[in-house]
Amino acid sequence: MVSQLKPSTRLLLGPGPSNVSYRVLRAMCTPLVGHLDPQFLEIMDETCQMVRDVYQTSNQMTFPVSGTGSAGMEASFVNILEPGDKVIIGVNGVFGMRMKDVAARCGAQVIEVEAEWGQPLDVQQLIETCQANPDAKACAVVFAETSTGVRQPLEELGAHLKNTEILFLVDAVTALGAIDLQVDNWGIDICYACTQKGLSVPPGLSPVTFSPKAMNVVNNRKSKVQSWYLDLSMLGKYWGEERVYHHTAPISMIYALNEGLRVIFEEGLAKRFERHAAASRSLAAGLGKLGFSFFAAEGYRLPQLMAVYLPDGVAEGNLRNTLLTKYDIEVGGGLGPVAGKIWRIGLLGENARSQAVAALLYALNQELAA
Amino acid sequence: MVSQLKPSTRLLLGPGPSNVSYRVLRAMCTPLVGHLDPQFLEIMDETCQMVRDVYQTSNQMTFPVSGTGSAGMEASFVNILEPGDKVIIGVNGVFGMRMKDVAARCGAQVIEVEAEWGQPLDVQQLIETCQANPDAKACAVVFAETSTGVRQPLEELGAHLKNTEILFLVDAVTALGAIDLQVDNWGIDICYACTQKGLSVPPGLSPVTFSPKAMNVVNNRKSKVQSWYLDLSMLGKYWGEERVYHHTAPISMIYALNEGLRVIFEEGLAKRFERHAAASRSLAAGLGKLGFSFFAAEGYRLPQLMAVYLPDGVAEGNLRNTLLTKYDIEVGGGLGPVAGKIWRIGLLGENARSQAVAALLYALNQELAA
Repeated sequence: MVSQLKPSTRLLLGPGPSNVSYRVLRAMCTPLVGHLDPQFLEIMDETCQMVRDVYQTSNQMTFPVSGTGSAGMEASFVNILEPGDKVIIGVNGVFGMRMKDVAARCGAQVIEVEAEWGQPLDVQQLIETCQANPDAKACAVVFAETSTGVRQPLEELGAHLKNTEILFLVDAVTALGAIDLQVDNWGIDICYACTQKGLSVPPGLSPVTFSPKAMNVVNNRKSKVQSWYLDLSMLGKYWGEERVYHHTAPISMIYALNEGLRVIFEEGLAKRFERHAAASRSLAAGLGKLGFSFFAAEGYRLPQLMAVYLPDGVAEGNLRNTLLTKYDIEVGGGLGPVAGKIWRIGLLGENARSQAVAALLYALNQELAA
Repeated sequence: MVSQLKPSTRLLLGPGPSNVSYRVLRAMCTPLVGHLDPQFLEIMDETCQMVRDVYQTSNQMTFPVSGTGSAGMEASFVNILEPGDKVIIGVNGVFGMRMKDVAARCGAQVIEVEAEWGQPLDVQQLIETCQANPDAKACAVVFAETSTGVRQPLEELGAHLKNTEILFLVDAVTALGAIDLQVDNWGIDICYACTQKGLSVPPGLSPVTFSPKAMNVVNNRKSKVQSWYLDLSMLGKYWGEERVYHHTAPISMIYALNEGLRVIFEEGLAKRFERHAAASRSLAAGLGKLGFSFFAAEGYRLPQLMAVYLPDGVAEGNLRNTLLTKYDIEVGGGLGPVAGKIWRIGLLGENARSQAVAALLYALNQELAA
């Protein structure tokens, strides 16, 4: 017989998951009702409305995909792309690369706009690439690149795309609930995120939203969507008014998302974003004093996810392990080409607080002074 | 502000979800650790071993897919099928039809073996179809057809397929944890299920298992798997020894599955299956006295999911609604061509108990006598 579940109580300051409030944990203990129970349908409707509010959108087609953020990414691409379609993708980190891989598996022709890791994509270059390819189905960028800590400017590109046939597709996995994201005002057509970062809900769902312009593309496909599980034409009939059974919704996770969003709106989005910014300033100042330096270009740094070089001569793996085993604090290592070279420190959702900043800075001070 | 979560305490006697024990609900309150935390990796390993045990298999590639049963179905087909491949699919209900749809979206050529709804597939016909198509990639059947309550015999077909190149693919969504399922002994190569039925864990994960024969097909593909999210070659590196990040595992749901499986092995599989059979006999006797009759052919009826015609003259929708609103008891209606004609009554996992049978029979007696 395997032993009882008794993991340590960690302070999760990596790129996600973040810690979850006791209210969200408690919500998961709510007894199950059926996935077509009138009471559950009401909870679904409330949840979708709060997802719209956190995305700052009025898009009808807004709901949580029954999978993690990567399932939301896949849902975003497979529903609009058909074999041979062109798609423009910005690549300056792991998640831009992942978008490229997902789009290519749809048989699409990927037109890549690259930037160095740690730098944002050049907005002018993106706009020119869109102008040169007016028949592209979408232009896709990552708002908050989890592998580099870079914040991609969106507004100018969105304003340009509004007047084209091209859809604006945005990865907001590390952004939603942590920094301002105005889907409607910024002209975003398709956006996906996760639950376990800025929303501080356990991983397992991916809130997505599709504009009427995006749904027009979805509804005029020539071929079936290659994924049955992620096919919006069927998912929309369960999450929308028709309530046609598609698959069994992850009920307890919907409870968790519902409660997590209620916690967010009790605080208010503006206050929440300011809390993230304040915690970040305080952490950045403390890290600077300890000899850490920033990986992401100045002016484009995410408050909620800092990518940093360690002080000279410090072995990152050893120190990261010491933080975990001696202090129960998790920070993230680098991915891909920057593995072993940088750390990624998240102040996401519940963890964007002075208490968390203090715990990490104290532990680092102790270990680096030793 | 939307209101607090406070659904009624339902007795869930539909086709799933089933009620969850307090221990599983409590497990979901376990604080999160990171998805690459050494403590979480250990929980993953334990969980996979228990999934192997419940499938009665030693297949190394056995893990929970981060989605519901339908995601497990999709994972099973997309990883083995390439465009133009032949696949033999048994269709005698909604879930056989779903398999056909999923396989066709992979660009496969589907060879259908049909039976009437309520009847099992003819095993000789399946074997002959396999003999006529030795180049087929797989032969797929539904073990427990959730839409009809039919139990499909597997052993003879599995014994035949063992000596061929054809993979034996089995949908065990409504079977796992409720009736005996011997993946290795019966020659099953690919099997998928869900968590919210016989395992009595909330919906959101799909335990899957792939035999070495199946992995040989997966590892010798010519093209990439069309789904990035469900690509076994990458998932195997996270769930296996390499621990390469793919997507963030649904941590709280893994906790729930871990605890739910522990509850199952404390009871023991043999006792659990006998409990389902006993509850079913008792329900069947009671329903018979009330004038219900069985939809599924005699000798092929699932104990854990009974499909029944109502007594003459009873309006199924009204009575089902009365059970829900007056007694807090959920039973399932019919799907597709039998919608409005039959009920599906589940005695799944935690609910395969005399208490549940008594509550339902009492309520039905009250309402039908009135």
